[in-house]
Amino acid sequence: MFKDQLASRIRLSKHRLEALADGVFAIAVTLIVLEIKVPELTRGASLAEVGHALRPMVPSLFAFFVTFLICGTFWFLHQMSLHWIAHVDRALIFINIGFLMFVSLMPFSTSMFARFMGHSTGLMFYFGNAAALGLFLNLHWWHAQRVGLLNSEHENGIERRLYSQRIMTVFWAFVFAFVLAPFSPQACGFVAMIFIFAQKVREKRILKAAAANA
Amino acid sequence: MFKDQLASRIRLSKHRLEALADGVFAIAVTLIVLEIKVPELTRGASLAEVGHALRPMVPSLFAFFVTFLICGTFWFLHQMSLHWIAHVDRALIFINIGFLMFVSLMPFSTSMFARFMGHSTGLMFYFGNAAALGLFLNLHWWHAQRVGLLNSEHENGIERRLYSQRIMTVFWAFVFAFVLAPFSPQACGFVAMIFIFAQKVREKRILKAAAANA
Amino acid sequence: MFKDQLASRIRLSKHRLEALADGVFAIAVTLIVLEIKVPELTRGASLAEVGHALRPMVPSLFAFFVTFLICGTFWFLHQMSLHWIAHVDRALIFINIGFLMFVSLMPFSTSMFARFMGHSTGLMFYFGNAAALGLFLNLHWWHAQRVGLLNSEHENGIERRLYSQRIMTVFWAFVFAFVLAPFSPQACGFVAMIFIFAQKVREKRILKAAAANA
Amino acid sequence: MFKDQLASRIRLSKHRLEALADGVFAIAVTLIVLEIKVPELTRGASLAEVGHALRPMVPSLFAFFVTFLICGTFWFLHQMSLHWIAHVDRALIFINIGFLMFVSLMPFSTSMFARFMGHSTGLMFYFGNAAALGLFLNLHWWHAQRVGLLNSEHENGIERRLYSQRIMTVFWAFVFAFVLAPFSPQACGFVAMIFIFAQKVREKRILKAAAANA
Repeated sequence: MFKDQLASRIRLSKHRLEALADGVFAIAVTLIVLEIKVPELTRGASLAEVGHALRPMVPSLFAFFVTFLICGTFWFLHQMSLHWIAHVDRALIFINIGFLMFVSLMPFSTSMFARFMGHSTGLMFYFGNAAALGLFLNLHWWHAQRVGLLNSEHENGIERRLYSQRIMTVFWAFVFAFVLAPFSPQACGFVAMIFIFAQKVREKRILKAAAANA
Repeated sequence: MFKDQLASRIRLSKHRLEALADGVFAIAVTLIVLEIKVPELTRGASLAEVGHALRPMVPSLFAFFVTFLICGTFWFLHQMSLHWIAHVDRALIFINIGFLMFVSLMPFSTSMFARFMGHSTGLMFYFGNAAALGLFLNLHWWHAQRVGLLNSEHENGIERRLYSQRIMTVFWAFVFAFVLAPFSPQACGFVAMIFIFAQKVREKRILKAAAANA
Repeated sequence: MFKDQLASRIRLSKHRLEALADGVFAIAVTLIVLEIKVPELTRGASLAEVGHALRPMVPSLFAFFVTFLICGTFWFLHQMSLHWIAHVDRALIFINIGFLMFVSLMPFSTSMFARFMGHSTGLMFYFGNAAALGLFLNLHWWHAQRVGLLNSEHENGIERRLYSQRIMTVFWAFVFAFVLAPFSPQACGFVAMIFIFAQKVREKRILKAAAANA
Repeated sequence: MFKDQLASRIRLSKHRLEALADGVFAIAVTLIVLEIKVPELTRGASLAEVGHALRPMVPSLFAFFVTFLICGTFWFLHQMSLHWIAHVDRALIFINIGFLMFVSLMPFSTSMFARFMGHSTGLMFYFGNAAALGLFLNLHWWHAQRVGLLNSEHENGIERRLYSQRIMTVFWAFVFAFVLAPFSPQACGFVAMIFIFAQKVREKRILKAAAANA
């Protein structure tokens, strides 16, 4: 019922979808820095005074740094997906728009994270947002596989299986961090990192085994 | 008299027009989120307190979500137009600039919509803006057809007729919602959705009939 | 002395210069709308009350509209230049960066224009900014011609001569409006429009004469 | 251990990396202008009054101008790197994301520079940020050379050696300005300029010698 019969008769290029995504990512990560305010001090303030006045900005700076890495990672994974996707359909475009909706929510979630640094509330917003990004990335990939939007060389590769594993792991890592946040605000971020690191080890092992078999 | 004799002697590529449009869309949808403010609470505030403090933000979040969908739809329709347009002339560029003017007004209209949620004033601004987007999209397509900017394969297709119907329906749906807003603020959004859904059914029927004839 | 011996040994593509320009234009025109604030009224405010509260916004809305047209025109002229330019060198890139500097000043000049609507101060900032854009556009074109960056088909065309005339006229139109602003704030904008219109008539006449000769 | 075995099996295009960079640069330089506020005066204020009210904005305008030049230079150098780089790997992407992190910090550093104009504190932030940009640019180039991402024509060129020298000089110029800022806030900027100028002279001499030998 929701199928777009008209749009499905044309083969849209992936170029503009990439351009929109690059634009939203670029703006979202740059807006985060607007959170960090210049302290109200006299012009001749010493470095120590400025340092002291900037101290309340440390959570914002840390959040800025973490968000840049997370957004960078999602941008990289999104690029990997589209590297293998040959053309796009309407459903893929709207899954992307959902994905970009949560990218553009990141400045807000980052502010929540910085505002309630070290407490569960900010962490739940932050990891909830990251988990939503992971969810849309998986939907995106799952749809592209199911409908046959991938380029033909990639159809049976080991890369496809590993990439599916990887983005599934990223999703579960952030879901787990989200669920853990109210119980252990200190540990939840590290747990997400362990998930992702374990996946890396697994990928390495599988690729080594595949090389040995070949 | 308004014809640009000089510009009409060169064939401008559509690439930069797409790039400008993607940029304006990316920025407009990302700016909307700046409306949503982080609550002023102590760092250790409980989730319940934060939830309570965020309650006034619900209209903004809802408006953010709706606007993302509407802008996403207009971006998608704009992309469909340009999929079929082979090259651009000056008039098309300025129709696009008019279109983008209303895209970049969307953050303001979204704020009006969120500020006066459920009341006619905000809805009239919002649907008025959406109707203006629909109007420019139709002008854009109408001009491209009239002047012969479409690529040749598309010149007589059924897709062309259905796409013309679709963007006309989108336009009238928002005009109708705009006119209805003062009388029935609750219903006007749904009416627009019914218009668009009815068009979908009609497209499906026509495509089925065309397939049966072929 | 200022020549970049190293950079002049490579042929940079014009693609990224276009991408940067499209980005700056897209952001500058979208930021202007941030000036227009949602009125602070109760949710159930009538349309008349909202209309009244929005009245102080009328200069901003008018300035937004005018700026969109002026920026759109400069974007279009910049695109025409680059249509004919085959590749770029370092000087062209830095002339472009100067051009983009004044594009990104447009939101500020637009605010000045809206703030002091109808008075000379705002108009001088506004037309001064537009004149600076015109100056850089001419520098850009003049440099491209002098150094031989144009593609070969265009080297002797009538289009080249007319385009040179046109951007020179745009520059002088805004210089004249700038100079006239303190003496006649009401008329200066119209004078700029007359300049540009006269150029259009001249272009038409020259093209007709050329067609008659051929 | 940090190697991405999966990503290293695919050849990512450099196009999206360029698009993200162009977006971040475009936004960062345009956001700087938001610092410059329209003075709160009556509509009929004279040019002298407006000029007086804008006087506190002079540092911001100066900082805007300098930042545009510095960002433009880094954008140009980044473009030169990518002109020679044929394809990208994951490490290059994350070095780029680090680079872009400091690009998007520039609006903040520019505000610090403008706020504490002429004093060591603002200068240290500003030149520190510029030095970080230089560092990432060198990492980027060094990684591309080491892993073999350059296109083959460029593998042994004199351009490669000179470009390596140039970006190293830019890095040290800003490091030196950063270190000098607490001791001589007046001179540190000029010292950076002398470094860069000396490099230009050196490049010229080497290219002349190379031309004489050939």
